Amino acid sequence: TGPLGQGFANAVGMAFASKMFAKEFNNAKNSIIDHYIYAILSDGDLMEGISSEAASFAGHIGLGNIIYIYDDNRITIEGSTDAAFSEDVQSRFASYNWHVQKIDGHNFYEIEEAIVNAQKEENKPSIIIARTRIAKGSPNKEGSEHSHGSPLGVEEIKQAKMNIGCDPDLHFFVPQRVYDIMAERGRELADKHNEWNRRFKDQIKGELKKKWDTFFNLPDILSLKDDLPVFETGKAVATRSASGKVLEALFGKLPNIIGGSADLAPSNKSFVSGYEETGRGSIGRNIHFGIREHAMGAIQNGISSYGGFLPYSATFLAFADYMRPAIRLASMSGLHTVYLFTHDSIFVGEDGPTHQPIEHIASLRAIPKLTVIRPADAEETREAWLSAIDNRFGPTALILTRHDIPVIERKFGKAQNLNKGAYIIWDADSDPDILLIATGSEVHISIEAAKKLKDKGINARVISFPSWELFEKQSEDYKKMIFPEAVNKRIVIEAGIKMGWEKYAGIDGLYITIDQFGASAPYKVLAERFGFTEENILAKVIEYFKQ
Amino acid sequence: TGPLGQGFANAVGMAFASKMFAKEFNNAKNSIIDHYIYAILSDGDLMEGISSEAASFAGHIGLGNIIYIYDDNRITIEGSTDAAFSEDVQSRFASYNWHVQKIDGHNFYEIEEAIVNAQKEENKPSIIIARTRIAKGSPNKEGSEHSHGSPLGVEEIKQAKMNIGCDPDLHFFVPQRVYDIMAERGRELADKHNEWNRRFKDQIKGELKKKWDTFFNLPDILSLKDDLPVFETGKAVATRSASGKVLEALFGKLPNIIGGSADLAPSNKSFVSGYEETGRGSIGRNIHFGIREHAMGAIQNGISSYGGFLPYSATFLAFADYMRPAIRLASMSGLHTVYLFTHDSIFVGEDGPTHQPIEHIASLRAIPKLTVIRPADAEETREAWLSAIDNRFGPTALILTRHDIPVIERKFGKAQNLNKGAYIIWDADSDPDILLIATGSEVHISIEAAKKLKDKGINARVISFPSWELFEKQSEDYKKMIFPEAVNKRIVIEAGIKMGWEKYAGIDGLYITIDQFGASAPYKVLAERFGFTEENILAKVIEYFKQ
Repeated sequence: TGPLGQGFANAVGMAFASKMFAKEFNNAKNSIIDHYIYAILSDGDLMEGISSEAASFAGHIGLGNIIYIYDDNRITIEGSTDAAFSEDVQSRFASYNWHVQKIDGHNFYEIEEAIVNAQKEENKPSIIIARTRIAKGSPNKEGSEHSHGSPLGVEEIKQAKMNIGCDPDLHFFVPQRVYDIMAERGRELADKHNEWNRRFKDQIKGELKKKWDTFFNLPDILSLKDDLPVFETGKAVATRSASGKVLEALFGKLPNIIGGSADLAPSNKSFVSGYEETGRGSIGRNIHFGIREHAMGAIQNGISSYGGFLPYSATFLAFADYMRPAIRLASMSGLHTVYLFTHDSIFVGEDGPTHQPIEHIASLRAIPKLTVIRPADAEETREAWLSAIDNRFGPTALILTRHDIPVIERKFGKAQNLNKGAYIIWDADSDPDILLIATGSEVHISIEAAKKLKDKGINARVISFPSWELFEKQSEDYKKMIFPEAVNKRIVIEAGIKMGWEKYAGIDGLYITIDQFGASAPYKVLAERFGFTEENILAKVIEYFKQ
Repeated sequence: TGPLGQGFANAVGMAFASKMFAKEFNNAKNSIIDHYIYAILSDGDLMEGISSEAASFAGHIGLGNIIYIYDDNRITIEGSTDAAFSEDVQSRFASYNWHVQKIDGHNFYEIEEAIVNAQKEENKPSIIIARTRIAKGSPNKEGSEHSHGSPLGVEEIKQAKMNIGCDPDLHFFVPQRVYDIMAERGRELADKHNEWNRRFKDQIKGELKKKWDTFFNLPDILSLKDDLPVFETGKAVATRSASGKVLEALFGKLPNIIGGSADLAPSNKSFVSGYEETGRGSIGRNIHFGIREHAMGAIQNGISSYGGFLPYSATFLAFADYMRPAIRLASMSGLHTVYLFTHDSIFVGEDGPTHQPIEHIASLRAIPKLTVIRPADAEETREAWLSAIDNRFGPTALILTRHDIPVIERKFGKAQNLNKGAYIIWDADSDPDILLIATGSEVHISIEAAKKLKDKGINARVISFPSWELFEKQSEDYKKMIFPEAVNKRIVIEAGIKMGWEKYAGIDGLYITIDQFGASAPYKVLAERFGFTEENILAKVIEYFKQ
């Protein structure tokens, strides 16, 4: 499942998804969804903070379908866990409301008994602490870190085999008895599988079958368009608020969209009223992840891997760093997930530089296969959501403003062009002298600047460029149409670092960006200070044009 | 201290630094360093995984000088903690080997008693769980999330003041009795301060004073040069191994350099033999952080903030994502810290894409004020360490190879040029036709390719470009000398994403980079597959040159 701790939280997501399915499709007589989620854990998994976050979340909800076996071998790469790990795992997990058992991990009867006990516990996740010896039987490396990452060696393997009762000269040997047991177990499971299929057909039919199918077949986004909000030109709407309104409409259309925030729902506009909530002992489409961004990302990956759901998560853009390892894995695994990152620039205001993203948009763009979209207004925000739904084999991050920005008057290119990644949103009447390339809250001020530039005899084209990844998928012809090669005076306007924009505006481009940490002040003061005003853009562009 | 959870781990770092100082400078008679580290925690701090990591670490070592007060108000932004947080904090912290007390957080006598108890506990960190009511006294908002992020309002404040026994019409009022108590306390503390200064002068003198001064005055790096290893040209040395040898030499010269790895010391070459270790109940310069990258970064920030120490930490480059929020804060705070990120590319090999950094060098370069250095060989690695020591007002990340690479023959520019960020490491006899821009393990193959290109009549200059940040500090003249404007055929060769390199090689540059996730195979197979061979570079450059 990737670096340590990810699998712990992934499995919590799977267990959660399973409970959601059970809620939607089981009835009193027929439990179609009635399986367990198993995982094997290491010391490393338990030391990583993400597992604490996920354990506390799972215990809070009471995910009784979780059965984890902790391979308590007391060895890490640097040696005995005495070096860094002496906590009482048993009482720690009990404190998270988990069912905890301690066994000898080499005793098959104890393992079986513990698993059966764990299955019986319906209201708490289970962890089985299985004390083991790493490289058991190896005369020189049992219980040593030297058996962790390197092979035992031929002689050591022979002796280890003898010590655990195997023939040292047989390689990859499976006794006939094991074949027999597995064959019998295979027949048992095939019967169970057939029986489950019968129960499934018996129960999932008619309206319930239709519902089931909607979980596994997202509709064409064209069929959603008519039910989504339209935003009036000129009105001031924060894109986070537009996203909230679109999400609300989507909840009504797509029963399998679920998600929530790491305790910032009122700010992220990620809670949808009128739908059930996940809480202590309860399951609902509105999830309270708690202040646990990393686990949120990895639980979301687990939900997505389980299948059937389109999970979203939400936090401030500055905290995307906390969940970055999970976003990377979603990208690598091609998971269909959506991230709502609001408060997307210094325009967060008074919270100051620790809460003001500067390098975050760039650092998300750096992750392969992640689609990053920073819509220019409420209209583009609706289209960004549709693009995220349509991006079925990878994650999408929506980068949204805290502050109100106007819905842009569109004479040149409609908001639907967002799906091309970049498009002309305002143009001079004749061939452009310069290109103003902007994203998000910087687009509308770029348009205002372009209008003034025209009065001064400079023909500026304004390109709304919400998504690099979507743009790179377009034809070369389209790319050249938007960015004519002849126009080499190019200006990038984005309230973040310039890194990477050189690809589009070149070594000699003008960059109105922020390449330092922010500051604490009301957002209009910050706009002045960091040069994101129409006047400053105008002055800089005129100076650049004259060069 | 920044986003939630950071302060928890920062204070663990400060407490650790204090214990290290006590060990170095206290004696049986005289405890110069004898203070406590206090912090106030919220529900959010406890939910974040980083606090679990730091708590487990602090409990393991037994940092008895920590006194944390947890403001248990049971309210988060989304409402009651019932939404997402019901763990038993008391038994959780007891499981980490902490001293735990529960009090009424509005009762001053209980607060005082609990702090005195915590001070008496010398072998365990202390947490005081103080049950409080948020906005106490407010008639409508006491105990509600609506008092978390927004002002109470004039009328509500008046009534709250009445309810807690204050005059509702007085603003910013301090009763005379409080002035008197504070003045008396001030005199008491001034006496204590004077007494401490006397004890300090009495004890810290002679050799001990010299030692003290070395902690607070790092020597000029020129004075260190002669004692650091020199690496023989042509020899194959992984830069992680070179770093280990340099670190060993530095340990002998600088008594205040301390650090360790998140359980990858044998791989990171970050453990220095012959010096004491931090472990259960013990303190030493070699720290075992456990598999806790995020807390490692934030503990390191705490050590650095405390003063006197130069802390380093180590892990695989792919796991830099786990500690990214702490690296960002080190950068913002201008802390002097060093990160050793080894296994710096797909050449990690068989561990596969989850452990192969692709976008990580770029995403670290994205963080303002962080200096990122990827040395080309063992010689540059020594210089990179010196640069990190010299970078006193900010963090430095060293990006190091797992695999052996040759120590480069230097006819053109010495390894000391690393401090300029980029320099000519190989040049054609006449003016260059093209520039080969490379970093780390890609430099030596670029030189081999350049030699072959010369045979084919193409004059290539090879630029070793270990650090963008160091290069950007150079004069415009120097920059143009290395990158002559006339040479617009530029090739970048780096085993990572190309994002940002366009600044140096332009829109029409050739990029031999990796813009997708890696794969699992022996490193030589990966070099073929991803085109990082002399032959492939040669073929691509020749094709590009002809265009």
